[in-house]
Amino acid sequence: MRESFEIRDIDAGGRIGELTVPRAGTTVETPALLPVINPNLDTISPRRLADEFGAEILITNSYIIHGDDDLRERAREQGLHDLLDFPGAIMTDSGSFQLSEYGSIDVTTEEILAFQREIGSDIATPVDIPTPPDVSYDRAASDLETTQDRLEIAEGADTGEMLVSAPVQGSTHPDLRERAGHHAEETDLDVFPVGAVVPLMNDYRYDDMIDVVAAAKRGLGADAPVHLFGAGHPMMFALAVAAGCDLFDSAAYALYARDDRYLTVRGTRHLADLDYFPCSCAVCTDRSPSELRALPDDERESELAAHNLHVTFAEIRRIKQAIRAGNLLELVEQRARSHPAMLDGYRTLLDHAAQLERSDPVSKGSFFYTSHESARRPEVLRHHRRLDRLSVPDSLLLTVDRSAPDAGYDDAWRVQPPFGPFPRALSKTYPLTAETPERTDRAALEAAADGVARLVETNPDAGVTLAHRDWPADVLARIPDGVALVDLADEA
Amino acid sequence: MRESFEIRDIDAGGRIGELTVPRAGTTVETPALLPVINPNLDTISPRRLADEFGAEILITNSYIIHGDDDLRERAREQGLHDLLDFPGAIMTDSGSFQLSEYGSIDVTTEEILAFQREIGSDIATPVDIPTPPDVSYDRAASDLETTQDRLEIAEGADTGEMLVSAPVQGSTHPDLRERAGHHAEETDLDVFPVGAVVPLMNDYRYDDMIDVVAAAKRGLGADAPVHLFGAGHPMMFALAVAAGCDLFDSAAYALYARDDRYLTVRGTRHLADLDYFPCSCAVCTDRSPSELRALPDDERESELAAHNLHVTFAEIRRIKQAIRAGNLLELVEQRARSHPAMLDGYRTLLDHAAQLERSDPVSKGSFFYTSHESARRPEVLRHHRRLDRLSVPDSLLLTVDRSAPDAGYDDAWRVQPPFGPFPRALSKTYPLTAETPERTDRAALEAAADGVARLVETNPDAGVTLAHRDWPADVLARIPDGVALVDLADEA
Repeated sequence: MRESFEIRDIDAGGRIGELTVPRAGTTVETPALLPVINPNLDTISPRRLADEFGAEILITNSYIIHGDDDLRERAREQGLHDLLDFPGAIMTDSGSFQLSEYGSIDVTTEEILAFQREIGSDIATPVDIPTPPDVSYDRAASDLETTQDRLEIAEGADTGEMLVSAPVQGSTHPDLRERAGHHAEETDLDVFPVGAVVPLMNDYRYDDMIDVVAAAKRGLGADAPVHLFGAGHPMMFALAVAAGCDLFDSAAYALYARDDRYLTVRGTRHLADLDYFPCSCAVCTDRSPSELRALPDDERESELAAHNLHVTFAEIRRIKQAIRAGNLLELVEQRARSHPAMLDGYRTLLDHAAQLERSDPVSKGSFFYTSHESARRPEVLRHHRRLDRLSVPDSLLLTVDRSAPDAGYDDAWRVQPPFGPFPRALSKTYPLTAETPERTDRAALEAAADGVARLVETNPDAGVTLAHRDWPADVLARIPDGVALVDLADEA
Repeated sequence: MRESFEIRDIDAGGRIGELTVPRAGTTVETPALLPVINPNLDTISPRRLADEFGAEILITNSYIIHGDDDLRERAREQGLHDLLDFPGAIMTDSGSFQLSEYGSIDVTTEEILAFQREIGSDIATPVDIPTPPDVSYDRAASDLETTQDRLEIAEGADTGEMLVSAPVQGSTHPDLRERAGHHAEETDLDVFPVGAVVPLMNDYRYDDMIDVVAAAKRGLGADAPVHLFGAGHPMMFALAVAAGCDLFDSAAYALYARDDRYLTVRGTRHLADLDYFPCSCAVCTDRSPSELRALPDDERESELAAHNLHVTFAEIRRIKQAIRAGNLLELVEQRARSHPAMLDGYRTLLDHAAQLERSDPVSKGSFFYTSHESARRPEVLRHHRRLDRLSVPDSLLLTVDRSAPDAGYDDAWRVQPPFGPFPRALSKTYPLTAETPERTDRAALEAAADGVARLVETNPDAGVTLAHRDWPADVLARIPDGVALVDLADEA
């Protein structure tokens, strides 16, 4: 068990955790959002972030502070917490972003770590190399070596109680991301940012983002706290949490506000395009869009930033509540409908259902089947695997409902889309207590047929009859040849 | 054009409208929520509903006022607006609900309409017969005759400037609902409640609810303001608006609060089950669930009712904004994932795609394909119909991408799932500018194949080649025999 991170609750790949931050003398509950504070610009003050929005942690950039004579001296004298007037934990970035933007920076990992410690940072960052997406394998591998050297320097540095992050790079090459994750996990560093995903998010490549995260997670293992670096749009938090991310940072709330852009969990809107505020926060109930547009620039920016934070923190709470209630994937199902690219992201997440299944709890509240994608959830996969361990009588009726005559069989099991067959003894257990639509769909029928096929293939000597109701021919084509078929619709 | 209702914006079956309420000297923008005020109990005062939540209209029960000596006298003396202290429009119910619950009431339609007028109601209701779901056709038809008699009595009554509603009944028999709608439309009454749907909603029968609404709408015609009587849960507003409902009334906000139940657009939660508030409203940002649980009963009830109203009014604003932006069905896509029964409701709504298509605007912002259900949206249907009017050259290549060699053809048209084929000239027009996922699905391919089939069947003499990429056999089975097939995946 990792000392500084304890996992309290799990749902799919998502978890509620507690990150102990010894230097701040505090713990941070995850999933957590770290608002980004630009030390030169104060859209919403750190004190207000704590008091009004409940922020337990924020992030600022030590490189910017280091490069400004006045800020640097004040940070050295007062310490970051007094400088910013923030009572929670403070994480600092290192200048890696500036490195990736401008090609070089004027500090080393040793120097910036020492500076971060000096000014009282609670979680420091070495200077890693944020390799962009789609570069050649060789370049990504070579950059990664440099990053790994920097992590080893960080490991050897005298950082006291300060936590240190170990960024995971590797561009869009999953095996490099996995290797990077594994290397980072082997260091004694504490927090694991998945780096350089911002270009993917800017291009709506949520599918590639999920592949990158899933690969990093395979390397890191289950108990590492994972930070999705630069991810601040609430539309994708649920998806990213379900993939196993714990920490997010948002500059978006302030940057977007400066641009009159308004965040929602369904995407970004421009204030000029809004006739009504689709939100229940205090900003959106106190004023109409036209009233907000009429405010002076600075006041409008501050109000928009406050809205952006309200919707962002509410989504974090919604996600935590969903994890606690065991319906995180139901929330992801909804967020997946925000944009076709989010649907791609969810479909990609389900490619990793076996990876999610490893951590997913055996029992939760109630499985809701709410789309064709639900047929690919980890719970369906787990049920299919469980079929291998069930003992099957010589003569077995599998039936979609109780109306099928079952005389002459050793036993009769129900078949429920999307899960497939199960013996009566399991009928009250998760996920077979699922709520499913009256109007089923082919994805659910196909998954059920695959369950039947798996049971039959594991038990080739059993005599199996499947009583279905009006299943289409291409679904029935998935059932092995030896199975006798009865269509209950014909019998009626 | 109906005098008292003007439609400003349309998306699918949903619209933003303006209901003129002459007696209140005001207009009400729809979709609108009418909070239900129990004249004996004041969870949130009508004044606060107007000032803090922006309620333009509320509903109260004239039968309860009529039956209480004290209330009746005060209502007669002061008038409803002063009695309740509400500056907007006031609609009154008639006792029909009490009739359905207790079997009889002690007023007639004439009496209660006169009383409603006397106490200053702005929109009155006759005593209709709320026939429950699933009763025999004969009973529903006989009840409906009584309701229709009452509407005719109401039509003949002296109601002055007061608007009068014409409830549409007919149980779960669509042809009766349609006939009832048609009859109501023929009266000179003003507002059209679809009645007795509460039992359907209580049983999560959103599919049957949509069939009932769609039938009533067919009878009523496009320009009638429709009230979904007794519908107060924000989870289903978007679906109901997309089906063509304009007015909702909510007693839920107060009744649920009394029971420690917390409304969300994803369903109802019990306060005891919440560890985090999944909401951005002032109630949910000021306190944690445990802090709210610790409040005295009356204060807790009032805070919960305020939350319930915030989330309810925010959803109404979100729906209006979606109509304005032309993405109402994208919102319905998301709400359909709240519960399998909501998915049934959405799938049922798409059964009525042809009915929705009649009012759906020709052009909107951008079509988002976000689920298998998207393939059945009215825009896809409309495109298929439009294919019949396109002129087709003798030799035509239909291709899923530009990589197909097009030499030797008179023309080459793109094929885009879910729409199917279209000539270059249409490529910048709605909905062919759609955003679709990278990972397409069979529903989209099937719809595209159906488009190809429709084009070919309308133009049997054209020589058509379809260049697809890896389309599965059962999708290709939908393409007529005469079409030459090229698989671009083989060519590469």
